[in-house]
Amino acid sequence: MSHQWPENVGILGIEFYFPSQYVDQTELEKHDQVSAGKYTIGLGQAKMGFCSDLEDINSICLTVVSNLMNRYELDYAQIGRLEVGTETLVDKSKSVKTVLMELFSSSGNFNVEGVDTTNACYGGTNALFNAIAWIESSYWDGRLAVVVCADIAVYAEGSARPTGGAGAIAMVIGPHAPLVFDRGLRASYIKHAYDFFKPDLTSEYPVVDGKLSIQCYLGALDACYQGYRAKAAKLTGKELSLGDFDAVLFHTPYCKLVQKSLARLAYNDFISATDRSQTEYEGAEAFAHIKNLEDTYFNRDIEQYFMSHSKQSFERLTKPGLYLANLIGNMYTPSLYGCLVSLLIQTPWERLQGMSRIGLFSYGSGLSSSLSNI
Amino acid sequence: MSHQWPENVGILGIEFYFPSQYVDQTELEKHDQVSAGKYTIGLGQAKMGFCSDLEDINSICLTVVSNLMNRYELDYAQIGRLEVGTETLVDKSKSVKTVLMELFSSSGNFNVEGVDTTNACYGGTNALFNAIAWIESSYWDGRLAVVVCADIAVYAEGSARPTGGAGAIAMVIGPHAPLVFDRGLRASYIKHAYDFFKPDLTSEYPVVDGKLSIQCYLGALDACYQGYRAKAAKLTGKELSLGDFDAVLFHTPYCKLVQKSLARLAYNDFISATDRSQTEYEGAEAFAHIKNLEDTYFNRDIEQYFMSHSKQSFERLTKPGLYLANLIGNMYTPSLYGCLVSLLIQTPWERLQGMSRIGLFSYGSGLSSSLSNI
Repeated sequence: MSHQWPENVGILGIEFYFPSQYVDQTELEKHDQVSAGKYTIGLGQAKMGFCSDLEDINSICLTVVSNLMNRYELDYAQIGRLEVGTETLVDKSKSVKTVLMELFSSSGNFNVEGVDTTNACYGGTNALFNAIAWIESSYWDGRLAVVVCADIAVYAEGSARPTGGAGAIAMVIGPHAPLVFDRGLRASYIKHAYDFFKPDLTSEYPVVDGKLSIQCYLGALDACYQGYRAKAAKLTGKELSLGDFDAVLFHTPYCKLVQKSLARLAYNDFISATDRSQTEYEGAEAFAHIKNLEDTYFNRDIEQYFMSHSKQSFERLTKPGLYLANLIGNMYTPSLYGCLVSLLIQTPWERLQGMSRIGLFSYGSGLSSSLSNI
Repeated sequence: MSHQWPENVGILGIEFYFPSQYVDQTELEKHDQVSAGKYTIGLGQAKMGFCSDLEDINSICLTVVSNLMNRYELDYAQIGRLEVGTETLVDKSKSVKTVLMELFSSSGNFNVEGVDTTNACYGGTNALFNAIAWIESSYWDGRLAVVVCADIAVYAEGSARPTGGAGAIAMVIGPHAPLVFDRGLRASYIKHAYDFFKPDLTSEYPVVDGKLSIQCYLGALDACYQGYRAKAAKLTGKELSLGDFDAVLFHTPYCKLVQKSLARLAYNDFISATDRSQTEYEGAEAFAHIKNLEDTYFNRDIEQYFMSHSKQSFERLTKPGLYLANLIGNMYTPSLYGCLVSLLIQTPWERLQGMSRIGLFSYGSGLSSSLSNI
């Protein structure tokens, strides 16, 4: 059976919800009696959103989906798939998706595929990939998909606490979209790790190994970038580097890690660069012959060199995407898509129109990660 | 871009794991001091499997995937997607899928998409649909998918306790399969309900409203069957009825409900039958003009009439699929696929070869449901 995949499958609309309350990170520094700048400069965070006790994962998802449908004047009967990525569980069995079906009640449309999908901050990306695949599959019936990413991130007292946050994003996915995912192009890296998990089911707080988590994040980024470039080379016959991106957005536990991550991509470019293009990297000769990338995650010389080398790239490619993450904090599953919203609201229309490749790196501890692009 | 969906996407192999220990339901009747036959005849259950405290959801999934890979002599590098459907959570954030990636470690293959998907007993079906869509999408890279359905079902003392069980099923999904899912044909029904849920995160036990759950199950079955028939009529130009199926398998909380469910499909056939074909249903005239199907879930006259009317159909289409459910009990996500395994091991090869339509009804409380077929 011959078949035409629908054209330009991607994001048709986005709605974003974040709490109305926040903690100023300068005040949190004082309250926690840490040195001034530890959270604001060290982590790159200005504010942290938090929910009141009148909100939970179900309520913020109901709000964001309802707002999305109203804003885009969509009818619930137009939706054929709805799924939720979250790690904020209030029930071990009943999905948030089923609660959202209350919104569909008056339309009488209950033929809406998809349930909840979970792995730390990665669940929303998994939901998004599922929605795209459904639209390209024989089971697609021409209707739209809605993908919801939502989490309330709170930490116990200690070093991770300033990296909390909360938010919910809903996206309409369909063909003929303004933000199109590159067909057939993405790379994933999924592995067993205990960098962050929630084994105490009575607690909202995760167990976190901060250093291991950075290591896992950077390792996953290396692997996804290499996999993505290999796949792109296969599809396009061209070797990609950072210069081929108009923006690169990352899952953002805190803004400083994202700046280091862009530097990490620059380091990857450097390693795979030919001798001729390596001349751009004056003073980096010593970093060219390191055999094992895993030994370099905490190498300060490499980090400093490439932070400095990629400073301009960071300002151009990534910083506009950190606007909301800086003010709200880590939202877990919506984090990466919050960066996309930031980019859209921070970039002049003329520049957005000219963008042809926006990289999207999704990471969830435990660990799951993917690099895709629109 | 023109594209050919791969041919005959379906199940290439199945592996099934169940616990080595069981409770005899006759003994449980005595222990619970209920009337003899309440569990064995009333629920249709002979035995109930249970895990020891040396097993958990991660261990039974590791076992079933490892056995699957060995049995079919598959290399871990051949797998491009792996996902898990379960409601047996031991961690709120880290997916079982990431634990399973330990098995991939020596192959060096970490580019394996998919995480965990949850809504009660429906998560495995959602995972299966995702895997099929991936194979039909532009992101498919030619590798195989593995879908894992696993749960450990235990109930607090009371009427639901004899409906426990445990099991894990892993399926290899790919093209050119012997068990092919009908392209583009399935119907889903997903709605907000509190028939069964797990709000006490410290407890293994669900909160169950038994009567509401039966009502939700039968209502979902009606909706899926009607949706499926409408879709089939659109695709094939033909009105389907039970006579077009060679087997009909159901999610099985207990065997007796499944027998009632087949009777329910016969009732649906009756309602939608033309005047001429309604003559098959002598004595059912009074049931033809009921306006609201929702009023009939607990109508004993309808139930008895159609249980009796569909008795032969049940023996032929459904009973061979209940072999393992009767001996193990409710396995939650693997339940429906346990019925498929039962059918395969209980049916002579010659008959299996001649089968052209096996209906699969998946139900998860909360609620999510789908009717598809192979």
